[in-house]
This record gives sequence, structure tokens and C-alpha cells, in this order.
Amino acid sequence: MEPTKAGRRPKGSSVLEPKARTELRQLAARGTHEWEAIAAILDAGLLASVGFSVDGQPFVLPMLYGRAGRTLYLHGAASARIMTVLGGAIPVCVSVTLVDGMVLARSAFNHSMNYRSVVAFGTARTIEDPRAKLSALRALSEHMLAGRWDDVRGPNRSELAQTAVLAMDIEEASAKVRNGPPIDDEADLPRPTWAGVLPLSTVAAAPVADPQLRPGIALPSYLENAGEAGRS
Amino acid sequence: MEPTKAGRRPKGSSVLEPKARTELRQLAARGTHEWEAIAAILDAGLLASVGFSVDGQPFVLPMLYGRAGRTLYLHGAASARIMTVLGGAIPVCVSVTLVDGMVLARSAFNHSMNYRSVVAFGTARTIEDPRAKLSALRALSEHMLAGRWDDVRGPNRSELAQTAVLAMDIEEASAKVRNGPPIDDEADLPRPTWAGVLPLSTVAAAPVADPQLRPGIALPSYLENAGEAGRS
Repeated sequence: MEPTKAGRRPKGSSVLEPKARTELRQLAARGTHEWEAIAAILDAGLLASVGFSVDGQPFVLPMLYGRAGRTLYLHGAASARIMTVLGGAIPVCVSVTLVDGMVLARSAFNHSMNYRSVVAFGTARTIEDPRAKLSALRALSEHMLAGRWDDVRGPNRSELAQTAVLAMDIEEASAKVRNGPPIDDEADLPRPTWAGVLPLSTVAAAPVADPQLRPGIALPSYLENAGEAGRS
Repeated sequence: MEPTKAGRRPKGSSVLEPKARTELRQLAARGTHEWEAIAAILDAGLLASVGFSVDGQPFVLPMLYGRAGRTLYLHGAASARIMTVLGGAIPVCVSVTLVDGMVLARSAFNHSMNYRSVVAFGTARTIEDPRAKLSALRALSEHMLAGRWDDVRGPNRSELAQTAVLAMDIEEASAKVRNGPPIDDEADLPRPTWAGVLPLSTVAAAPVADPQLRPGIALPSYLENAGEAGRS
């Protein structure tokens, strides 16, 4: 990622110091600790794989997330054991991956994927303050679908109490990106094997109205072009 | 998932015994330990989020995978620290999630996702035998893109030595599936908010030939319809 002009560098722009957890050992040319690259991938993703460990047993669960600056938000049922475990100041790893294509080389060995991925580390804490909870839930909702929050009934006191919301300040993070064609060995180029990239993306189809939708309710503008544009 | 007729039940069909790691506590109605449901999701997925823990620090990394029966295969550079760590008989959690849509309710609280996900637990071991390694790599390749393996140059001895291949027998697994429209509170139904589902899927666009592709090499049949059909 090319650095922007110094004078136009966004506030908070920096390189996250690589430490033991995120040192880029394999294929370091594909990796970066640039915060802008990390944030762009986090914003383009939809689900995170959230990893934690209980008595040495690892768990990985898919969760929606939101972001504000270098803080990630997660939520779940307050009655869920995982939310209590995650809120208990244990180390957490959040992984977000966007798949951009299959890289089809002439040799099995040089096959790869085009992708953008982030691995972020931190410690989650439970947000107790109702106003801070609401703000985090808005970030989660806006991350899922921008414009939706202001269009729906917000959580009431009981719903807010039933929802556990966690904040995880990102202590360390790294991004990896691969794009472009396959890189074959010179000796394989004459092979009669088709080589190239099969582009993949997550796309939205036309919205499907709830069978109980009252007549005369128009599709909101933030969904109008959803069927044409991809998520990433 | 409805059980099939006893007489037509596929060999190996069974319910994986739920244990502490996979007991379905939240929204148990969405969960299953039926092996067929678990296998179908594993086969439809492309990337797994592989979780493990080193000295209490959780790590989650995106990896391609393959499946043969109840064994999952993973691979990576033999020089990669993660492959040594993962092959060291430590507990591993593999999570695969397919996103099928955003569930847009009239209240923020009743928003959800339509998805199919599997969480599987086991212990990975390094495959040393070259023939077993090749067989696992074929499973990985065929999982990524069926038909590709027979079309490419297979790994030579040096490439095989540079590739670490792991096998993880699934000891416990569970699947969760949500589909269908939003489920709103009765009191919210008269609201003038559009409600329904925004379907999401991972789809392939037209294949992009390698700039170095020799003229006259046709697109293989297993890629011909790739741009029309989704991955899941």
C-alpha cells in the first residue's frame, strides 16, 4: 500500500508495531501492518471468526462485528456462556477474510487464492453503560447495512438488557493481501493447461420482502441497488 | 433436518454425540449434530477459520481445506511455524460459515443473519507418508475446484517436501442453520419499516486468463459455467 502524501495523511494513521503474534513470517511481501489497509479490510468484511481459548481448548465462532477507530464491537445474547467468557478479560483473536478469487496455476503447487485478510488481537470487555451499549450496537448495525439503524425500532430497555455487547481494543493486527494472476514456474508455461483467476465475490440478490410486509412500504434507498453491487 | 428412511440411510450416517464443547445452548432449534448436515456445509464451504492456542494465546487463520469422511485436511508451507504448531497434537477448532443473507426485521433486536455454519473439534497430525500426502492434497484441490487436479502438473518430490499436510479427525462437531424471513414482535408489524431478507451468496465471475496463457488453450469444462453458478 502506497503511503499517502504526508500532509493529507488521515489522523490516527500509523503502522501498528509488529510483535510476536503478528510478525509476518510467511510470504511477508503479502503482509502489512499499515492501519489503513487493516481498517479497509475490516470495513469491507461482514462476519468475523472470533477465537478464544478455555482451559487450552480453542473455540472459533462466526460473529457480526462493528468498528469505531481501533475498537471492534461484538454482541450476543446476554444469556450465552460465550459472551460471559469473552467478556472475562481473556485474550481474543479476531479474523476477517474476504475471498477474491481462485488462482489457478499450471502446477498444483502454485495454486493459491486471491484474498484480503486481517488477524487482530486484543482483550474484550463487556460494555455495561446503556448509552455506550447503544452506540456500539449502532456501529454493529451500520457495519452490517449502512442506513438501517435509523429506519428500525431501536432496542428497548428489556432488549438492551438481553444483549451483551463487548468491546475489543485492537492491540496488534496484521493484514495479508494477494491479488493478480498465478505465478508459475518458467518450465510449466508451455503446458496445455488453462491458467488464470476465477474471480469470486459475495453479492446480494434482489431483496425478498417479509410475507407479513404491509402493502405500500417501499424498498428503502439503502437497499435499492443492493442486488447490483457486491458486499466487497 | 429430517431423518431419511432407515433403509436408505447412507453408510456412516449418524449423530455425532454432543459433548461439552458442542452442546447447543443458544438457539438450540437452529442447531444439529446430524453428520449429513455437517458434511454438506463442510463441502459447500471454501475456506475454514482454523483456531488453536499457544500458551493461552488464541490464533485464528483462514485456510483452505479438504475432506474425506470425517477427516479434514489442511496444508501450508513446511517452513511455516503454524504448520509445526498445528501438527503438534494440540487441540484444534475448525469453523466454516456460509453467509446466505441479512435478515432485516422491523426492530434492531430481531435482526439476524441467514447462514449455515459448522464448528468442528479435533487434534491435527502431520501426514508424513508421500502417498497419503498426495491423496490429501488431491482432496484439498478437489474441494477447492472439482476437476482441477487431473488437469495440472502434480507436485514433484521437492514441492511435496516443501508442503506440510495435516489431517484432523473430527472428534466433535455441530452445525447451525438459520433461514427464512425475519421474526418480528407482533407489536412491531404495523411499523412502516421495510422488512425481509437481503440474500447474499459467493459467486464466480467470468474466469480471467493468465496474461501468459498460450493461445489456443480452451477453458476447461469444469470452469465453463463457473460464472453462472455460485459457490454455495
